[in-house]
Amino acid sequence: MSDIAATLLACLPADDVITDPDAMVAYARDQAEWGAWGAPSAVVRARSTDEVQATVRACLQHGTPIVARGAGTGLSGAANAEAGWVVLSLERMDQVLEVNTLDRLAVVQPGVINDQLRAAAAEHGLWYPPDPGSAPWSTIGGNVATNAGGMCCVKYGVTRDYVLALEVVTGTGEVVRVGRRTAKGVVGYDVVGLLTGSEGTLGIITEVTVRLRPAREPERTVAGFFPDLLSAGRAVTAAAEAGLTPSLLELMDRTLLQAVDDWKHMGLTTEADTMLLGRIDTPGERGDAEAETMAEVFRVAGAVDAAVAEDAEEGELLFAARRLAYPAAERLGTILTEDVCVPKDQVVPMLERIQEIGRRHGTTIANAAHAGDGNLHPLLVTEPGNTEQLGRAHRAFGEIIAACLELGGTISGEHGVGTLKRDGLHAELGEPVVDLHRAIKAALDPHGIMNPGKVFRP
Amino acid sequence: MSDIAATLLACLPADDVITDPDAMVAYARDQAEWGAWGAPSAVVRARSTDEVQATVRACLQHGTPIVARGAGTGLSGAANAEAGWVVLSLERMDQVLEVNTLDRLAVVQPGVINDQLRAAAAEHGLWYPPDPGSAPWSTIGGNVATNAGGMCCVKYGVTRDYVLALEVVTGTGEVVRVGRRTAKGVVGYDVVGLLTGSEGTLGIITEVTVRLRPAREPERTVAGFFPDLLSAGRAVTAAAEAGLTPSLLELMDRTLLQAVDDWKHMGLTTEADTMLLGRIDTPGERGDAEAETMAEVFRVAGAVDAAVAEDAEEGELLFAARRLAYPAAERLGTILTEDVCVPKDQVVPMLERIQEIGRRHGTTIANAAHAGDGNLHPLLVTEPGNTEQLGRAHRAFGEIIAACLELGGTISGEHGVGTLKRDGLHAELGEPVVDLHRAIKAALDPHGIMNPGKVFRP
Repeated sequence: MSDIAATLLACLPADDVITDPDAMVAYARDQAEWGAWGAPSAVVRARSTDEVQATVRACLQHGTPIVARGAGTGLSGAANAEAGWVVLSLERMDQVLEVNTLDRLAVVQPGVINDQLRAAAAEHGLWYPPDPGSAPWSTIGGNVATNAGGMCCVKYGVTRDYVLALEVVTGTGEVVRVGRRTAKGVVGYDVVGLLTGSEGTLGIITEVTVRLRPAREPERTVAGFFPDLLSAGRAVTAAAEAGLTPSLLELMDRTLLQAVDDWKHMGLTTEADTMLLGRIDTPGERGDAEAETMAEVFRVAGAVDAAVAEDAEEGELLFAARRLAYPAAERLGTILTEDVCVPKDQVVPMLERIQEIGRRHGTTIANAAHAGDGNLHPLLVTEPGNTEQLGRAHRAFGEIIAACLELGGTISGEHGVGTLKRDGLHAELGEPVVDLHRAIKAALDPHGIMNPGKVFRP
Repeated sequence: MSDIAATLLACLPADDVITDPDAMVAYARDQAEWGAWGAPSAVVRARSTDEVQATVRACLQHGTPIVARGAGTGLSGAANAEAGWVVLSLERMDQVLEVNTLDRLAVVQPGVINDQLRAAAAEHGLWYPPDPGSAPWSTIGGNVATNAGGMCCVKYGVTRDYVLALEVVTGTGEVVRVGRRTAKGVVGYDVVGLLTGSEGTLGIITEVTVRLRPAREPERTVAGFFPDLLSAGRAVTAAAEAGLTPSLLELMDRTLLQAVDDWKHMGLTTEADTMLLGRIDTPGERGDAEAETMAEVFRVAGAVDAAVAEDAEEGELLFAARRLAYPAAERLGTILTEDVCVPKDQVVPMLERIQEIGRRHGTTIANAAHAGDGNLHPLLVTEPGNTEQLGRAHRAFGEIIAACLELGGTISGEHGVGTLKRDGLHAELGEPVVDLHRAIKAALDPHGIMNPGKVFRP
C-alpha cells in the first residue's frame, strides 16, 4: 500500500477508502474515449466537507495530485486519474439541503444528480434549467466543474448562469464559502464564476447554491424535415435572422435518424435526410404565432415538410428520437464526441467543413447539434479495435478543431477541455492568455495538487 | 514635472497628457461623497489600445500606480487617484465598432456611453439591458469594471450576464483578448467574469463585446401607494411569493416623494407615504393578467391605492418621478448613497433596521430601492459642512452595513467596493477569501500597479 493510502486510511473511516486495484478501476476515468488514464493510489468516497478537507490535506502532506469526480459522465478526460493519484468521489454527498421559493434558489451537495435537483425544484413550482444530455446521471458538482450546457441553453443559458455560491476546499486545504444568496452582489472578484468550469484544477466543490426559475411555460414543438444537412443549417441561421428566440433548436442528421430507425423503427428516414426540432415557450397567442413563423422559416429554407406539432404528445414523440441519438450512435461503433461551437452565421460553413473532413479521411461522422446556439456535436464513429480507422478519426478530430477556430468558433461549447482538447485550448487562447491561466492556478493551488495537467499544459 | 509625466509625454502625443494640476482635478475622483483622493502626477486621455499599453508600460517602468476611469460616475471611490498616481481616461475611446444582429452582440470601445450602446442596439431591433441610473453618462468600460446593475436586473440580470469578451491590458503591460463571440464556450477559466467587477485592480479594459437581446416587449406599469414603508416592503415579498417576475419593481419612500413634489409639484404625497412601481413585460393576455395580479398583491399588502396604468404615457409619468428621486434628494443636502442587497424575505426587516438606525443617529435617511431584488439604496442626507451631522451619518452608514450582513445580505448590490466599503468587504468575505483575492491580484498584477488598495486591503 502506498504512503498516501495509509495516511488516508488513518484519518478517514475505513469504508470511505478503496485501495483494491480492481475496485478502483470504475473510478479511474470518465467517459471520454481515447482519454489517457492511470491507476490511482486510492479512491476516497467522502461523506462530508470535513472528509474532503482531510483528503486534500493528506494529499498536500504527500504532494499527491487529487482528481475529484461526480458520476464520471464527462467526455473530455477531465476526471481521469494518473498513476499514483488520489481520486475523490463526491457521489455520497447527495442531499438537497434547501429549496427556497421566495429567493428562488436551492442549496445542494455536489453529488446530487441533475435530474434530482430538477425534480426537487419542480415540487416547489420552480425549474433548474441546465439540462446536459447526462442529466439523469451526472451530478451538480460535475456540472459546475465543467460548466455544463444542454438543450435549453439557447434561451436559458448554461450552468455558470445559475451558480450563486459555492463551498470549496482550496488547494491549500482550506474550506471557504464564496458567492451569495442575494439577487445581486458586487463585493469582490467573481470567484464563483472562476471555479465554475475550472474542471477541478482550482479547488473541490463541496456545496452549491443555484438560482432557480419559475416552472416553465408549456412549449410548442416545431419539426422540420430537410433534404440535406446544409439546408437544415441554413434554416438555423434563418431562424436567428427572423428574430426568433426558440427555447430549444436541435439538429439530427441522416446517420443518426437511420440509427434510431434501425433500432426503434420510428420511420424517421422515410420523411427526410435531416431533422430540425425547434421549441417555443413564449406564452399565449404570441407563442403560437412564433411557432408558425418557425415552421414557415423552415419551409423557406428548404424543408420538405415543416409543421407545429398538434399537441404535447406528438412533440414528445419527436423529441424522444433526439434523446435516442447518442445511444443509437453507440450501436454503430465506438463514438468520439466532438463539441465545437461557432457563430450563427458560420453554422453552414462549419457543417460543410465537417462533411468534407469526414469524406477525406473516410471517417463516418454523424451530426447532432444544439444548432440554435451553433454548438455542433459531430460524432466520429470507428469500428472497435480498428487502429487504422482510429488513426484517421484522430486526424479528422484535429482538423474539425482547426476548422472551427478558423471560422471564429470555440473548440468546446460545453464538454470541456480535460486532456482531449488541451492542445486545442493552447491554439484557441494563445500563450499569453494561457500564462494568465497558469498564474491563476498557481494563486489558488500553489502546491499544484489539484488535477494538474488538465485543461492546459503545466 | 514628475519622472512618470516626462516619460508619458515622451511616448504619447502631447494632446493626450494633462499635467496641469487644476486641469487634473476633474479627473482625480469619482462621485463618491467622502471618498479619499489625492493629486495625480498625470492624466492620460488615451485614443487607442496602443496608447493604453504605452501608458501601462510607462507606469511599470516607474512603479507608478494607475487608475482607469470612464465618466467618473462611480459611487464608491474606485476611480479615485492617490497622490502621484497616473489617471487613465478612456473617454476618447468611444466608438461602437459592430452591432451583429445574427449573433445578437455588439463590440464597443470602453468609452461608449451606456445610452449610446442602447441606442445603437435599438437601431437594429436589439436591446442592451443593463440600465444603471447613470446610463445617460456612464461608460460601458466603467459599467464592466464595476459590474453595473440597474432597474431591469430584477428580470434581466447585471452587466456580467452580458459581457462575452474583453480586450484587456494586463498588469504586465500585455494586450490580451479573453472570452468569445459564440453563444456557449467552456475553454479555460472565466477570465472575462473575473475582470468584470474587478474595479480596475486586475487590468484595463480596452474593448468590450456584449451580448444583446431582442427589443423588449411593451411593459405594463403597476403603481401601488402605501401608508408606510413597511407595508410596501411586505408587498415586495408578497409579489415574490405570488410567483411574479416583474421586469422592474422600484420603491420610493415619503422623503423622496416629498422632495420630488417640492421640486416638480407632481402631487405624489397627496396619494400616500410610499410608492411601489412595478412593471410586467410578459406578452399578451398573460401579461395583462400578471399586472392585475400585482395590483391585487399590492392591495392585499396594504396599499391604499393600486392600479395598472391606463396606458404607456401614464406609466412613463409615474416612472419620471422615480428617475427624479436622486436629483430631488440632492436638493435636500449632501447625499451618501448606500447600496445593500438582502434576500427577499429580509426586505422588511432591513427596512425596519434602516429606519431605526436613522432615528437613533438623528440622520435623515431617504429610501429608494430596486426592491424586487432586495437591493436597497438608503440615501443618507447631511447638511453641507456640518461635521457633527456627518459624524453621525458615518456611524449610521457603518451600522447599515453591519445590519445587512446580519440579515444574510451583501454590502453592495451594484455600486461596488472602491474605498468606501473596503472594510465592509473584509467583514463580508472573511480573511481566507480575501487572501484568495490577494493571490488572484498578485497573479494578474504582479507589480501591484493596477489601482492598488481599492476593493481590499493590500
